[in-house]
Amino acid sequence: MNAPVSRRSGGRAARHAARTAPLAEHLRPVRPGLTGGHFAPLSAADLDRIHHAALAALEQIGLANAPASGIRAMTAAGAILGDDGRLRFPAALVEDTIARANRHVTLCGRDPRHDLDLSGTRVHFGTAGAAVHLVDAATGTYAESTLQDLYDATRIADRLDNIHFVQRPMVARDIPDPREMDLNTLYACCAGTTKHVGTSFSEAAFARDALRMLHLIAGTETAWRARPFVSNSNCFVVPPMKFALESCEVMEACIEGGMPVLLLSAGQAGATAPASIAGAIVQAVAECLAGLVYVNAIRPGHPAIFGTWPFVSDLRTGAMSGGSGEQALLTAGCAQMHRYYDLPGGAAAGIADAKLPDMQAGWEQMCSNVLAGASGLNMVYEAAGMHASLLGFCHESLILGDDLIGQALRCVRGIEVTEDALSLEVIRATCLDGPGHYLGSEQTLSLMQTDYVYPNLGDRSSPKEWAERGQPNLIAAATARKIALLARPSTARFDPMTDRAIRAAFPIHLPA
Amino acid sequence: MNAPVSRRSGGRAARHAARTAPLAEHLRPVRPGLTGGHFAPLSAADLDRIHHAALAALEQIGLANAPASGIRAMTAAGAILGDDGRLRFPAALVEDTIARANRHVTLCGRDPRHDLDLSGTRVHFGTAGAAVHLVDAATGTYAESTLQDLYDATRIADRLDNIHFVQRPMVARDIPDPREMDLNTLYACCAGTTKHVGTSFSEAAFARDALRMLHLIAGTETAWRARPFVSNSNCFVVPPMKFALESCEVMEACIEGGMPVLLLSAGQAGATAPASIAGAIVQAVAECLAGLVYVNAIRPGHPAIFGTWPFVSDLRTGAMSGGSGEQALLTAGCAQMHRYYDLPGGAAAGIADAKLPDMQAGWEQMCSNVLAGASGLNMVYEAAGMHASLLGFCHESLILGDDLIGQALRCVRGIEVTEDALSLEVIRATCLDGPGHYLGSEQTLSLMQTDYVYPNLGDRSSPKEWAERGQPNLIAAATARKIALLARPSTARFDPMTDRAIRAAFPIHLPA
Repeated sequence: MNAPVSRRSGGRAARHAARTAPLAEHLRPVRPGLTGGHFAPLSAADLDRIHHAALAALEQIGLANAPASGIRAMTAAGAILGDDGRLRFPAALVEDTIARANRHVTLCGRDPRHDLDLSGTRVHFGTAGAAVHLVDAATGTYAESTLQDLYDATRIADRLDNIHFVQRPMVARDIPDPREMDLNTLYACCAGTTKHVGTSFSEAAFARDALRMLHLIAGTETAWRARPFVSNSNCFVVPPMKFALESCEVMEACIEGGMPVLLLSAGQAGATAPASIAGAIVQAVAECLAGLVYVNAIRPGHPAIFGTWPFVSDLRTGAMSGGSGEQALLTAGCAQMHRYYDLPGGAAAGIADAKLPDMQAGWEQMCSNVLAGASGLNMVYEAAGMHASLLGFCHESLILGDDLIGQALRCVRGIEVTEDALSLEVIRATCLDGPGHYLGSEQTLSLMQTDYVYPNLGDRSSPKEWAERGQPNLIAAATARKIALLARPSTARFDPMTDRAIRAAFPIHLPA
Repeated sequence: MNAPVSRRSGGRAARHAARTAPLAEHLRPVRPGLTGGHFAPLSAADLDRIHHAALAALEQIGLANAPASGIRAMTAAGAILGDDGRLRFPAALVEDTIARANRHVTLCGRDPRHDLDLSGTRVHFGTAGAAVHLVDAATGTYAESTLQDLYDATRIADRLDNIHFVQRPMVARDIPDPREMDLNTLYACCAGTTKHVGTSFSEAAFARDALRMLHLIAGTETAWRARPFVSNSNCFVVPPMKFALESCEVMEACIEGGMPVLLLSAGQAGATAPASIAGAIVQAVAECLAGLVYVNAIRPGHPAIFGTWPFVSDLRTGAMSGGSGEQALLTAGCAQMHRYYDLPGGAAAGIADAKLPDMQAGWEQMCSNVLAGASGLNMVYEAAGMHASLLGFCHESLILGDDLIGQALRCVRGIEVTEDALSLEVIRATCLDGPGHYLGSEQTLSLMQTDYVYPNLGDRSSPKEWAERGQPNLIAAATARKIALLARPSTARFDPMTDRAIRAAFPIHLPA
């Protein structure tokens, strides 16, 4: 094919002028909550079969290890405790729960402009995970991640347009005490961003402590309950088909405290879930349906996110492979099940197996992110920054992920087909009377801001320009942006009085 | 979420043994011709509207600059030459042409196991382009591309499972004479691979010379015509809506010589095509429909590929941006139009704007490749190796692209939902009687070869293993593989007698 059209100066000044005008939020080419759903690997019949297999698994196999409180609540709702200690769920109970569950969930940001409406196929991308290393992009060193690393990640994410929420992506390994770690994690996330925050707690008592901190941040308990800006990422099951005792107790405490719950089933196909993609989805759906029964048995209508997060094993080694095509399919298939139930849902995408933000990381992160978005997944967790199959988090990769997700979101938005977009009159005017090209046309000028996504760091210069600029390096550019972003004060820090109150009540490690 | 399941030795020996057995071609997890179609950004109504807008453009605007021979053939078929010199196409002529066009096209390889069946939504990935630089992955240098570079690319592509055809990706800039360049390009491609080859010719006379060479390679003209293993990539239009005189003459010579034609319309949205995605598709479809009328007016049923290749402009500069989300949507929308007509189609994907095989290149190449495949595009051109918005080709990137496309193909294949795949019995056996995990299960062992794609160079080791191996570099690994592949003799070289005959007839530059 021919070489691309060469750069022209005609119309450039006009385009530049158009670009400098600010754009209303609803006119931005991509934004949180764009409607996906154009990728659908499962047919309607497939969805039915998966649903019925999940119902059969719940009725016939059930889940082991429910805590006493959960057994009380779920048997009262209609679940049956077997002699083998497993809790089984009649199909009618599950179907009724699905029908009555809360399907109008908004996850609040501390700043309301970051609220996330999880209805329909509205798509949001954000961080998540429990990486134990921070990746140094320049040296490739994997160091134990610290509270400061987490706080920095949160502050960076706060500034990135295409990161719509901030679930804790890495663990503060420098805080050995579990309670202090949970509370400082929450503090660091909330102090770093006014976007919706997700985090986990290792004991119910810590969740209750955390709620007290959230009341302080919100001003009052009533204010917190009116707009809960933190959700609990809760691994309530240990796949296959077992409840996780302490996580369930945490979940009950969060429900009591008015905190939305992410019902997270993180099986690994070929290890803790069936190796077939359909089977891994069946198990994840069954487990999350059990979680949904649990939540609604405790408090009907409590906001819960259907968190089918099946992962993939590299079956040669049994190790996890989050960057595979199989992972992208698992996540997209789960998103279709969320829509089948019309329930707010989340799953994992954007994970790289690559150790560094290299070409492999780029293709791995895009593959699952763009298909997750195109499948209409409400909450795309772990969408940026994750390396080494979730073991490492990288600040530079998070920043580059913002560019990557911008392009993915453009694909989620899709193709508008209107009379104007079809362009027949523009083609006619250009070919019959006009200049024979579209460079300066009114349509081109009007669409350049509303229809086209421009990368922040992605380089589109010509080889000549690029060489003249000394072959600018993508990672170095990301590091420079990281330094610039972290040099700016957080807009999310608490007012001094609130901060003093928090520090008086809790052992906060970050300096005031 | 929890850290991934740690690596285990249980079942590893059995898995290793299973992996060493060779797998029948039809059982490979990915292969040429997988059926796509799960990504559909355009609705049925959208497709109708685009079709009718294209018909209106052909009837009302038409195309300028048809050669005299084309005007004769197309007006005889029913096209109308206006006083303004534009050829206009009544809707009935276009509809009849679509109905009668050849929709059962197989592109042959010199080796029949590389034949490509372009029916339905069967997907094939390959190279293409006219890059003028070879990119040195280690230094970032863009040097003028040579015939040897092209021959090397062809030999590398011949060995890569996920590169299904080899259209000439770069130009032999070291051969100034256009005829010698065309003939040596053809020789180098055919001498490097037994996969289907695509190339272009700058004059009809060179195409006729090329056909004589192809008769020699095939043995006889009859043998060539029975299994034409080269197609003509033909830019028969200069968008917007103008025929390209010399390319049309080349096309007529190729049709005469029995060579399949890729009807390539390479407009650039915002420059030579409307800036709206839908409008760029309308124009590309209109132009390719005109080409289809042309081909079928010359020889009814001649094999033609509907080559809607609209590209994207970065509207800030007017420069091309092949790595954008907009590009992925353009290509996927075109693939849907091919299916709307049930005609064999091709478009461009996998282009990086990045200058090097870095993270940006990875996300750019994956975004359009996976969506092109998922949309069921028959021929995904430019799928590997292309950088700097088509100006540079990189051997290492081609090799890494094979891995990238492997994962994209896994997504194209989708999710099988069968009774076995649903895994209810496997879940039951594992949870109620079994070990509580799936690591050594019969299902896991049987699916590990047929359902999972393993990267060649993509790294899935743990950070610890990776550090112990000295942080292996992805690009260095690709370079090592390049050297190893090029050290092997081409299996596609001609027998000595044929080669002597070719060299006697044509000025061949590659050493014998």
